[in-house]
Amino acid sequence: MKLLEDKIRAQGNILSDKVLKVDSFLNHQVDTSLALEIGKQFHRIFEHKKITKVLTIEASGIQFAMATAMAFNVPFVYAKKKKAVTLQESVYTAAVHSFTKQETYQVCVSQAYLGPDDHVLIVDDFLATGAALIGLVDIVKEAGATLEGVGCVIEKCFQEGRELLEQKGVSVHSLAKISAMAPGEIHFVPGDDEALLQKENDHAE
Amino acid sequence: MKLLEDKIRAQGNILSDKVLKVDSFLNHQVDTSLALEIGKQFHRIFEHKKITKVLTIEASGIQFAMATAMAFNVPFVYAKKKKAVTLQESVYTAAVHSFTKQETYQVCVSQAYLGPDDHVLIVDDFLATGAALIGLVDIVKEAGATLEGVGCVIEKCFQEGRELLEQKGVSVHSLAKISAMAPGEIHFVPGDDEALLQKENDHAE
Repeated sequence: MKLLEDKIRAQGNILSDKVLKVDSFLNHQVDTSLALEIGKQFHRIFEHKKITKVLTIEASGIQFAMATAMAFNVPFVYAKKKKAVTLQESVYTAAVHSFTKQETYQVCVSQAYLGPDDHVLIVDDFLATGAALIGLVDIVKEAGATLEGVGCVIEKCFQEGRELLEQKGVSVHSLAKISAMAPGEIHFVPGDDEALLQKENDHAE
Repeated sequence: MKLLEDKIRAQGNILSDKVLKVDSFLNHQVDTSLALEIGKQFHRIFEHKKITKVLTIEASGIQFAMATAMAFNVPFVYAKKKKAVTLQESVYTAAVHSFTKQETYQVCVSQAYLGPDDHVLIVDDFLATGAALIGLVDIVKEAGATLEGVGCVIEKCFQEGRELLEQKGVSVHSLAKISAMAPGEIHFVPGDDEALLQKENDHAE
């Protein structure tokens, strides 16, 4: 997604070969126009699927889940993070290890809001280790719902997240795929969405 | 806001005279159409103010900040509840005591995203003790920005939040004001927005 890549080049702050800060427009201060475009792009990519619900995890996935849910005209659900494992019978839970924070937390979704009739699109801001997304995938499975795919805003292709998700048979689409980066330098690989738009352009010709 | 009150009556879950669960449509599963209407309503209430930024706190304020920011066509910022690893530059902070969780946490906003030129509308899902909102008010003051008002989706009028905010000279508007509740029973007082719409209707006659 060229708009997103341009924004990352212009306003992203590359702190190291692993850490990219995008909190001026994606996940602290939020450019709502860009978020809406991201939602529309996920809709273009997954519109052939019958999506009944968008699922994300608090907090930084919420703005993209909202934009995507708006584009599909369905509700979204955000999983909650809990440190203490209090026994709650009415929730689906998965354990997620955060490598950044070096701690394990529980991801919870109320059983009332996800069930066997749901066709779920999972959306999040980053795909890196894939830990949080795998927790969400496990929750969708636990709910007996159909997982239609995972949409990520930014993917760090040099980390193992995609591989781990694809091993579980999950269809993963990212809008900006970073192959390598270092302070002052960033390289993208063409995203699935660009291939898709190219195909659309081919049809139009 | 009648649409919201009707939804609370139909789908809200009153657990006690103090606890109202609205997680089927507001803050776990989210009805995006309702969230957008809430954003438009805050815009109607505050449109005479020159708003440059909407401010909220993660996680459950994000969907309403996004809808409100969309209506004003400005960015929004969500305060983080503790200092994140990648939030390296200087931050404004305020200590907030959560009565529900009986713990004190830090609310942080990067200094890069709030400054003296900003005219800020604070938005959140609930106004009860006002603790989190007062933290945000303090951060706006610390930034030297102009606070134009606070918009809350649901206010529990029987708690002290509004009084504490008004003591600080803050203009508070809530869309559903609960005067009293108990399992199976809920009472609303007319909201500021309804008075405003009534005024609009009077003009139209």
